[in-house]
Amino acid sequence: MSVHGLTLGDILREHRRSRPRVTASVDGGVRLTYARLDDRVNRLAAVLAAAGVSAGDRVLYLGRNSVHLQEGLLAAAKLGAVFVPGNRRQSADETAFVLDDLAPAAVLWQRGHDAGEDRAAADARAAAGAPGRWLDGGGPGYERLLDAADPGDPGRPVDGAAPAVGLYTAAFDGRPACALLSHDALIAHSAAISLVRRIGPGFTFLNSGPLFHVGTLMFHLAAFQAGGTNVFLPAFDAAEAARLIEAERVHQMFGFGPMLTAVAEANRGPGGAPRHDLSSLASVAHSPEWDAQVSVGTDPWNASGMGGYGQTQVGGMLTFLALAPDGAGGAGRPSPFVQVRILGPDGAEVAPGATGEIAVRGRTVFSGYHRRPGLDARAFAGGWYRTGDLGRREDDGTLAFIGPRLHMIKSGNENIYPAEVERALKEHPGVADAAVIGVPDPVWTQSVLAVVSRTPGGTATERELIEHVATVIASYKKPRRVVFTDTVPRAGAAPDYAALDAAHGGGGYPGEERRGT
Amino acid sequence: MSVHGLTLGDILREHRRSRPRVTASVDGGVRLTYARLDDRVNRLAAVLAAAGVSAGDRVLYLGRNSVHLQEGLLAAAKLGAVFVPGNRRQSADETAFVLDDLAPAAVLWQRGHDAGEDRAAADARAAAGAPGRWLDGGGPGYERLLDAADPGDPGRPVDGAAPAVGLYTAAFDGRPACALLSHDALIAHSAAISLVRRIGPGFTFLNSGPLFHVGTLMFHLAAFQAGGTNVFLPAFDAAEAARLIEAERVHQMFGFGPMLTAVAEANRGPGGAPRHDLSSLASVAHSPEWDAQVSVGTDPWNASGMGGYGQTQVGGMLTFLALAPDGAGGAGRPSPFVQVRILGPDGAEVAPGATGEIAVRGRTVFSGYHRRPGLDARAFAGGWYRTGDLGRREDDGTLAFIGPRLHMIKSGNENIYPAEVERALKEHPGVADAAVIGVPDPVWTQSVLAVVSRTPGGTATERELIEHVATVIASYKKPRRVVFTDTVPRAGAAPDYAALDAAHGGGGYPGEERRGT
Repeated sequence: MSVHGLTLGDILREHRRSRPRVTASVDGGVRLTYARLDDRVNRLAAVLAAAGVSAGDRVLYLGRNSVHLQEGLLAAAKLGAVFVPGNRRQSADETAFVLDDLAPAAVLWQRGHDAGEDRAAADARAAAGAPGRWLDGGGPGYERLLDAADPGDPGRPVDGAAPAVGLYTAAFDGRPACALLSHDALIAHSAAISLVRRIGPGFTFLNSGPLFHVGTLMFHLAAFQAGGTNVFLPAFDAAEAARLIEAERVHQMFGFGPMLTAVAEANRGPGGAPRHDLSSLASVAHSPEWDAQVSVGTDPWNASGMGGYGQTQVGGMLTFLALAPDGAGGAGRPSPFVQVRILGPDGAEVAPGATGEIAVRGRTVFSGYHRRPGLDARAFAGGWYRTGDLGRREDDGTLAFIGPRLHMIKSGNENIYPAEVERALKEHPGVADAAVIGVPDPVWTQSVLAVVSRTPGGTATERELIEHVATVIASYKKPRRVVFTDTVPRAGAAPDYAALDAAHGGGGYPGEERRGT
Repeated sequence: MSVHGLTLGDILREHRRSRPRVTASVDGGVRLTYARLDDRVNRLAAVLAAAGVSAGDRVLYLGRNSVHLQEGLLAAAKLGAVFVPGNRRQSADETAFVLDDLAPAAVLWQRGHDAGEDRAAADARAAAGAPGRWLDGGGPGYERLLDAADPGDPGRPVDGAAPAVGLYTAAFDGRPACALLSHDALIAHSAAISLVRRIGPGFTFLNSGPLFHVGTLMFHLAAFQAGGTNVFLPAFDAAEAARLIEAERVHQMFGFGPMLTAVAEANRGPGGAPRHDLSSLASVAHSPEWDAQVSVGTDPWNASGMGGYGQTQVGGMLTFLALAPDGAGGAGRPSPFVQVRILGPDGAEVAPGATGEIAVRGRTVFSGYHRRPGLDARAFAGGWYRTGDLGRREDDGTLAFIGPRLHMIKSGNENIYPAEVERALKEHPGVADAAVIGVPDPVWTQSVLAVVSRTPGGTATERELIEHVATVIASYKKPRRVVFTDTVPRAGAAPDYAALDAAHGGGGYPGEERRGT
């Protein structure tokens, strides 16, 4: 074991010594100090070890946001195992896929935590011969297991470069892949967001989003690393969130627009006065009602919120708007622990102002996907992690995020990125939504076709929109044709390019051969 | 090269892209952006490579605080070499020892930067057959070398675990040893002080203390890592410091009590009004005159200053008072990237409340001493780095620093190792035995008192011995007083420092005032 090593287990070991009386976790009626959390984590590690979990094994958690998720993560970390918080919104089929793909040595399962998942778990156990040991993940059986276990530290040597957490993402080929994040990467990422968001001792975070998603998990881990307090909401509940913000003097929560609106509404008491004091909460500006109750900072670290660009595969955030609040690029500047390069199709760095694929090296980069050598080969080609996203370095050095690389259009030897053309189209007042595809062209390889839905009463013509795009971005990127439609089909947040290609004769993309890897 | 790697050279590579127009360095009339700094570093790396510097080689810098020191550090870093900023206050004998011990591949030498060192360098070159290539370290010859060199990045692969900086310290056995700090350790340490001191973009640091000392160097590196601005003072000059604070809107400087008093006095204009606006400077409270001019914060990160416990061998600071401002232990809590254990003589952890040796594992720990396997074996026994200092874990988990296990003296912020002074005294033919203690000093914390037994028939006077010591080692290490005795009391092989302290009014050793807490 190197004298320079540091793992998530080591951080907990230090916290139990440096912060024995500090509150680590609040979950309903349960309050744990760091000393008590470490005792329980040691006991759970003993339970998992007895169930056969060794270094490199996966531990799957099927349950709600809970201190038991934190205990599971840290117990797996002390054994050198990989903790995978399962997506509780996934279907039975998806759960069956995850069980098969992950082959977990143990499953921490909260019976009845979700109807769909219950069914999924039951189906999967039947179908797959119950891979791994299924253990009670939070009920009375869980407490009995812990009570019977040894509270001594397992003391196993764990390499900081070993994966500690796996998160399913990146369904490039139609099935999600499990991105593996090492202790080193998670610790560096926590340091980065702690620097940018000024997370320090006494910090209290409300785990109000799902912990199987990096957006909440990254703050959870940063609060833990800082020796702060994690407050858990089993699932999002606006009224309970408001109560907890006051009761625990919460500093930050995970929340995007509709969640903040819901909390403000739930906190509206008789006569309109707020039920709970939310003033401890640092937040971006959102609405007059919200802003009047919380602390809307004017410092970049606060006012810019989590602006920037990120991905599960880099631990969460790669760039932060707060590091360049007045920069030309909307994604700000990189985390202090990474290097970013914008690469052309040949893998060479492109000049400022040119669009290319965002590539990264550094501490927070993931360790590859679980059992997906094909995806890994593409992701790490050339010694850099290729994000699969397009960006641009502005003249002042700041970064702009353009959009996903897949579906790049090649026309007359020029690269045209649909996201860029779509953004230009949507700047026109008559356009409600837009998607851009490439259609085969005998002369130019491909030409650009736009599929557009108009705003109600909108009368924009094909010619008008083509001319508009040519005034906003380089003329060669403008559509040759515009097709109007009532609704642009979407697959999640992105246009459903496969459906659009099928409906409008798209094809001939240069990156197409990479879709299958 | 791992996709997770990050070196000081990589940070500069990213800065030149993310911050091409940000001012990296200000040194007299020279102002460098990060783009220009990287160009010059690349050129210097080419010069050093042509001089034969390879990975693992040492580059010794003999000169003042200067942007050339920063350039040398980063150029060595890009080659995987170790940069050693020489102590410019050291004697000719000490420089000769360093040249012999270090066997540098290249020496960056500022001719005439210091009378003693000039002499030392000349002596050493004559005596040692000029080890390494001696290059102009900052004069017109330096600029000519750079102008003729290639500004392309050397692009050599460098392992983050390789040493990047060497600092002479720890003269436990009478001669200082060169502590080697890796890229990884320095980057983690910069992250730690940046977290605690809220160092971020736009941060401007006045390099007002010597950069061969970790106290200034650690802020220099943190400012660099944050993409901030380093302003150099060639040597401390109170009036120039005041001018630069206003001109560059300096946020922090290196300064202890007497330095702050000197700046306040130098800034006293006609009629007592301040000459320069010092309000940009964050500082601990010091004196009514000082406090009225600077920004004395009330937040722990500011008000507690650099309170805590540290050592060159852990990159600077190991614990921070700002992480536990109300804690029972005066040294606060550890950096987020280390674990601390208090070990008994048997190497086992002692209980809270008991005193033992402070031991550490984690990212900021040094990589051992240059060519001192004996010291390394003791330092890293049992998989932890033993600091050689005594501490205690209080009931609330915070740490108290008790004092050196050996008997280090602190005078004007310099560490003086009794063994070093004792060796110098015993080199005098009239001295049979000698021991050195610290006695409390109202201005300098401590001053050096020597207890000496003469050789039979010896007639050496106090003045003669003080002058002798000043010719052998740095003048600030010489005794202020010499007391003659028949026999120097010994406890085993070492002087009986407790008896000497009791007999001669010794005390005020660092941390002593905290023994009662």
